[in-house]
Amino acid sequence: MGILGLGTVGTGTVELLLDSTGRNPLLSEIEIYRVGVRELNKPRKVKLPDGVIINDLNAIVSDPQVDIIVELIGGVEPARSLVLRAIQFGKHIITANKALISRFGDEIFTAADQAGVYVMLEAAVGGGIPVIRPLKESLSINRINTVTAIINGTTNYILTQMQMGSGSFDDVLTDAQNLGYAEADPSADIDGLDAADKIAILASLAFNGRIRLEEVYYEGICKVSKIDIVYAEKLGFVIKLLAIAQQDKKDNLPAPLSVRVHPTLVPKEHPLASINGIYNAILVEGEPIGQVMFFGPGAGAGATASAVSSDILNMVAELKISAQTLNPILTWKLHKHNEITPIEELITRFYARILTRDEPSVVGKLGTCFGKYGVSLESVVQTGFQDKLAEIVVVTHDVREGDFRQALKEIESLDTIHSTPSIFRVL
Amino acid sequence: MGILGLGTVGTGTVELLLDSTGRNPLLSEIEIYRVGVRELNKPRKVKLPDGVIINDLNAIVSDPQVDIIVELIGGVEPARSLVLRAIQFGKHIITANKALISRFGDEIFTAADQAGVYVMLEAAVGGGIPVIRPLKESLSINRINTVTAIINGTTNYILTQMQMGSGSFDDVLTDAQNLGYAEADPSADIDGLDAADKIAILASLAFNGRIRLEEVYYEGICKVSKIDIVYAEKLGFVIKLLAIAQQDKKDNLPAPLSVRVHPTLVPKEHPLASINGIYNAILVEGEPIGQVMFFGPGAGAGATASAVSSDILNMVAELKISAQTLNPILTWKLHKHNEITPIEELITRFYARILTRDEPSVVGKLGTCFGKYGVSLESVVQTGFQDKLAEIVVVTHDVREGDFRQALKEIESLDTIHSTPSIFRVL
Repeated sequence: MGILGLGTVGTGTVELLLDSTGRNPLLSEIEIYRVGVRELNKPRKVKLPDGVIINDLNAIVSDPQVDIIVELIGGVEPARSLVLRAIQFGKHIITANKALISRFGDEIFTAADQAGVYVMLEAAVGGGIPVIRPLKESLSINRINTVTAIINGTTNYILTQMQMGSGSFDDVLTDAQNLGYAEADPSADIDGLDAADKIAILASLAFNGRIRLEEVYYEGICKVSKIDIVYAEKLGFVIKLLAIAQQDKKDNLPAPLSVRVHPTLVPKEHPLASINGIYNAILVEGEPIGQVMFFGPGAGAGATASAVSSDILNMVAELKISAQTLNPILTWKLHKHNEITPIEELITRFYARILTRDEPSVVGKLGTCFGKYGVSLESVVQTGFQDKLAEIVVVTHDVREGDFRQALKEIESLDTIHSTPSIFRVL
Repeated sequence: MGILGLGTVGTGTVELLLDSTGRNPLLSEIEIYRVGVRELNKPRKVKLPDGVIINDLNAIVSDPQVDIIVELIGGVEPARSLVLRAIQFGKHIITANKALISRFGDEIFTAADQAGVYVMLEAAVGGGIPVIRPLKESLSINRINTVTAIINGTTNYILTQMQMGSGSFDDVLTDAQNLGYAEADPSADIDGLDAADKIAILASLAFNGRIRLEEVYYEGICKVSKIDIVYAEKLGFVIKLLAIAQQDKKDNLPAPLSVRVHPTLVPKEHPLASINGIYNAILVEGEPIGQVMFFGPGAGAGATASAVSSDILNMVAELKISAQTLNPILTWKLHKHNEITPIEELITRFYARILTRDEPSVVGKLGTCFGKYGVSLESVVQTGFQDKLAEIVVVTHDVREGDFRQALKEIESLDTIHSTPSIFRVL
């Protein structure tokens, strides 16, 4: 085996593979033959024999002694080129790289298919939580309807802390950074891009077709304020950053998929409502299974190393049976692209917080405007006036997103409306 | 493939296998060659070609045309004899039969090992929830510390309904029977035996050794009263029937396992506290994974058929690679028996509800008596007197069960003590 990368996850994986007592005996059949790093002279937490750690990564991926390449570099390049080259040289691939797979899965799966090698990527989604393999194997008979997931630990931590009253978004983000739950540049997490990468992978797997990442709608949590969390609470919801992939139906036939990431009001009694802190959870709904949920640590060296190393053991087990014939359930035969519905076509409930000027008839005007576009309201909460502004919070019934947006545009143009600070979808 | 049994799960499985549109294409490679039933002339929901449904089950398990036997009869006999005979004839086995595996797993796995055939049993534990396969595969690198599970839907439904104030144990049980959530003879569920079967299977898998079912302690939910649920609620707990398998440590080395089923006070913020109704959940704690939980429908024709049929697909996938060499991760090489700690040696917290006669110093006497046996109290709640009796509810700190029982025996012998209607363990 050749491992590329010896950062947090790489180190965790090597430590785990070397600590074999009381673990699966198959471990004894695995040799860490090479570990590729950028800087040879950096001090390392793990002890490996001389000559194992080298800095020529290209040599590792083409080394005839190597059967399996474990890519733990992260990011797109040089990971992409190295993985493609490894596949050309007939190596099986294990990766934890969600960005690589969500952006270049197409290219990688096609190459792997031609070369007849495995690509395993349990660690790319949900850290240590088994989800890729259960979807492929344990739920293989099902027609999947929906995948609804909390798959970004940083944002879930921030939202949970805000929910518990620990401060504003900025305060909590700073705390999260100090605790190591958020990166120095947290934008990929905060903006929803990380979750978009992951839901694209889950959607391609659950719905058996490739996903164009640029068609996945995503929206981050920057606009979630403490006041929205309080309103949501009063209305019976918690706010979560959800990643959703859904098979829409039209005339009872499968229509295009809806694949999206956005802050969402989740009813308190929903299984995802109580997933707090850095934990992740993936709720899968299928036929005939009904609802199943996978819950656990979505990040961290140990959890991710668990997923990577279990992929290694399972790959070794399959290769022991045959190095030529692959297990058809474990390959990625995605020959078509899944069609994705544009976000305007989404049918959903909305939550909107609207600031209005001091005028008694404003609720009536809102109602008229919403009614014009077919938006009916499930609940309306109006507060007293402060600084000559009142706050109106509405939750709509199901509505086409495009219609709701148009209604809102018209509402925002009314003299009596000051602004609309928050608009969230409701599960 | 030969299927034994065409009851609820058998019918669900056949329906699923015949409804292939939009499901895994491997389905096309599976032929339902024979279905064995007891009564040939019973009307059936599924349509199969003439001659497929027969009543000579012995002929099916020895038929050279059959590669895979799917045992869905349930119960011990004739399931056991048929499965063993099928193994002798070189058939691979899929079963949903927890009682068979928990009692005769020993015999069956040994025979399968000698014959070189698979035994897959995802449906035996947790209905449709993927848990056997994830433990074997996705968590294969981990050292498992604890499995804590709600794996009996009937009792969880009853406890949830009682929690929601829907009536007494007897009322709710009657409702559950009317709704089909409890059987006409519900004793195996209510008494904890069903959960004991399942935790024995999970324990043998998680801790890689055989379990003697007779060493698994189990206790049912008959003694859980509404008043206990109310006290538990006040103290911050919900009462759940938990099945627990735990690797105890002594001097930091693995000691015997603790494997048991009993009503348990679960802290409200614990992931299992919010698993309600007929749902099941299995919480696994391991190193390095941390906590992962699998949640879903623990019973029902569709969910169980999902597990059985996914086992079928996966077995077919493995057999396509090789019918001779088995995947070593999917076999059951359990060469030793796991040692089990007797329940008296358990270290746990206790909840006890004690009825005392009208006497002011009773709490002091209780404290003295408990203290004598090293039982220290975490909380004490005393109510007013009704009919000359007062109720005292205590929650202890961690204590050896044997010591607690001795203290309680002495307490019950005190003149001032009327009785101890409820004693539960606390998670």
